Amino acid sequence: MKYQAVKGMRDWYPEQKAVLTSIFDVLRTTAQRFGFQEIESPAIETAGLLTAKSGEEIKQQLFVFEKKGSEELALRFDLTVPFTRMLVQKQGELPKPVKWFGISRMWRYEAPQKGRLREFYQLSVELFGCDKPDAEAECLQLLVACLKNLGLQEKDFIIRLNNRKLLEGILKNYVREDKIDEAVRLIDKSCKLNKEDFDFELAKISSQGDMIQQLVSIKGKPSEVLPQLKSLKLNEEARQGLAELEAVTDLISLNCLQIDLSLARGLAYYTGTVFECFDSGQSLRAIAGGGRYDNLVQLFGGQACAAVGFAIGDVTLSLLLEEKGLLPKSDLKPEYYVCAVSDLVRAKARELTDKLRRKTIVELDLMNRKFSKQMEIANNLGVKKTIIVGEEELMQKKVRIKDMRTGAEELVLIEEL
Amino acid sequence: MKYQAVKGMRDWYPEQKAVLTSIFDVLRTTAQRFGFQEIESPAIETAGLLTAKSGEEIKQQLFVFEKKGSEELALRFDLTVPFTRMLVQKQGELPKPVKWFGISRMWRYEAPQKGRLREFYQLSVELFGCDKPDAEAECLQLLVACLKNLGLQEKDFIIRLNNRKLLEGILKNYVREDKIDEAVRLIDKSCKLNKEDFDFELAKISSQGDMIQQLVSIKGKPSEVLPQLKSLKLNEEARQGLAELEAVTDLISLNCLQIDLSLARGLAYYTGTVFECFDSGQSLRAIAGGGRYDNLVQLFGGQACAAVGFAIGDVTLSLLLEEKGLLPKSDLKPEYYVCAVSDLVRAKARELTDKLRRKTIVELDLMNRKFSKQMEIANNLGVKKTIIVGEEELMQKKVRIKDMRTGAEELVLIEEL
Repeated sequence: MKYQAVKGMRDWYPEQKAVLTSIFDVLRTTAQRFGFQEIESPAIETAGLLTAKSGEEIKQQLFVFEKKGSEELALRFDLTVPFTRMLVQKQGELPKPVKWFGISRMWRYEAPQKGRLREFYQLSVELFGCDKPDAEAECLQLLVACLKNLGLQEKDFIIRLNNRKLLEGILKNYVREDKIDEAVRLIDKSCKLNKEDFDFELAKISSQGDMIQQLVSIKGKPSEVLPQLKSLKLNEEARQGLAELEAVTDLISLNCLQIDLSLARGLAYYTGTVFECFDSGQSLRAIAGGGRYDNLVQLFGGQACAAVGFAIGDVTLSLLLEEKGLLPKSDLKPEYYVCAVSDLVRAKARELTDKLRRKTIVELDLMNRKFSKQMEIANNLGVKKTIIVGEEELMQKKVRIKDMRTGAEELVLIEEL
Repeated sequence: MKYQAVKGMRDWYPEQKAVLTSIFDVLRTTAQRFGFQEIESPAIETAGLLTAKSGEEIKQQLFVFEKKGSEELALRFDLTVPFTRMLVQKQGELPKPVKWFGISRMWRYEAPQKGRLREFYQLSVELFGCDKPDAEAECLQLLVACLKNLGLQEKDFIIRLNNRKLLEGILKNYVREDKIDEAVRLIDKSCKLNKEDFDFELAKISSQGDMIQQLVSIKGKPSEVLPQLKSLKLNEEARQGLAELEAVTDLISLNCLQIDLSLARGLAYYTGTVFECFDSGQSLRAIAGGGRYDNLVQLFGGQACAAVGFAIGDVTLSLLLEEKGLLPKSDLKPEYYVCAVSDLVRAKARELTDKLRRKTIVELDLMNRKFSKQMEIANNLGVKKTIIVGEEELMQKKVRIKDMRTGAEELVLIEEL
């Protein structure tokens, strides 16, 4: 009987792992250039932490452990929650702003489908302690830099931008206060529902569904949408949200940016700016998403602390890079192959290999193969040079080096290698 | 209320994460130079796979999930088991030998203590398809290269080497066949038991405990111990094990190598060579361990396939490196700090920063701080140069650059930056 990988989880053979590593190297370097520092947290957290502020959907998706002692433990479903816990534990010592990122795995127990798996990686970026629009600007520019450094162009993706205060403020004109959360969740799901279902659900929440639909359908470039929004009669909360939205777009000029009043983001912890990044064709799930979550630190027992963050998942990102022919390739060919011409010189060939491996990638035969077979393998591996260890040459403390491209051979003193 | 990390698990703040990354970079590069390719597997596997051949101790240490569907799932406790599953699934396509490694996390539910945690990392190296002593030689040399490339010297560690066929063959002269496993486990634990307890337990298994103790106390350099072993009257199995031991030591000359007949390794899947690496002072737990496990591939549903592997854990390794003052340091200081002299130029300062970040690490103020405060922070960060963005200079398309070491300032065209 052969065992299989668990459904919704992936094996990374060398080729896939090399692609993943290359992508993460780009993301890591980019985040570091923006002055963010890498951190990591355990895969496992207490269930209490994970369910404190994440909404019902997440609770159903938790991988929960069988209890052994009194601890209720589960796997993390994102990095924002554990990283915020880490911030709270050292809040007093850390100068503001705190700029952290992580590139790691998380788990959600849900039905696997295209672009959504039960185990996945994210680059998660968190910026704590800055209530200025500069925090959003920093995150949005970093997101764009990540995608561009992977070879994507600004025309390949769009970033939808909204503000929860603006959205909720507008909704409060048409929806009862205790139905706001429900309305936000419904609007968040609107693109996944057909129009009939959406209308039906919206009618349950508000008698002025038409008005709501008209307002949340506002979208477009900031230069076009902002004047339109400013001409609306808005309550205090919505005006505050609009001012925040404008302040962010004033700081950065990005062609890929689109204000979209229907964007809400599912997670319950966002308080202001929210954004999501999609491929321009919008044929895939979101590549990235994030926003401002000013209440989470306090909720986790810290002192009031502003926060903005975003995450890029590996699954959709890889699909897009593949579609564009941008999946990075790795080239870890050995530079040398060391051939032993007979059993008598195998220990010597190994000693030489061990020395050369201090500097570069070197292969040698482990299977006691004949000399001709070793040369064939060296050729198939595409090595640059083969080092031939023979008895006679060894007596002169020399080896033969064969250039595999030209076929030229030369005798070289071992100590000069 | 503040939440804590789960007991026996660690948070890696930037300084700790940088150390971990530096260590893993060395291990990764070293394994790649030996021609091993990096792979990765899910954190979660079916409980059936994880308990198939790992012994009772491991079963008790599994982190098992609450069942949602029919799947019994748990977290992996090592990488050898999932990597062997991966081999079986592609065995037909892969040319021999298959040389894989992974650097990743695993979990064991046990009481945390010094050098042993419930979540830890390992470099795990697996070499499939080679029944020659060259496989062991390759692994042992890679282990030594990893430690040396981290700055350790051969005098800082010892590698204890044994062979399960030799040990079990010897035991069969004094222990009933059905008690062999128990005897191996007891000998494996001998260094953790006091002499009285060990004698007592051994007496339960064999009436010739003295003889067993005398034999398993044989240890020392291969050149001394091998002749001694060859002079013993050994059965067929033990002779086979001794021949394998000698073949391995013939291929490599390492001063740190010690044959030690009491070494058994706890895991149930080893079939031949076994080895463990300790700090010379032997004040810490094992740094690394491994051996030959020729039956596991077949047990997992594959075709018979020889295998040798080893793993280095991060916990003990880090303790030793710290003791020796060899923990790597990271230096990710920003090269530039971009200062905006007033609010009017903040968007421009950000635009310039975004451009410079295509090449190097650049910080700027996010907190709307005064110019003098920005300069103070730039100084504290230890940046090389500060780029001062002022209104007048901008009109000439220039900025001022201040060398933070000499204090010298110069006016530079923005496009020349």
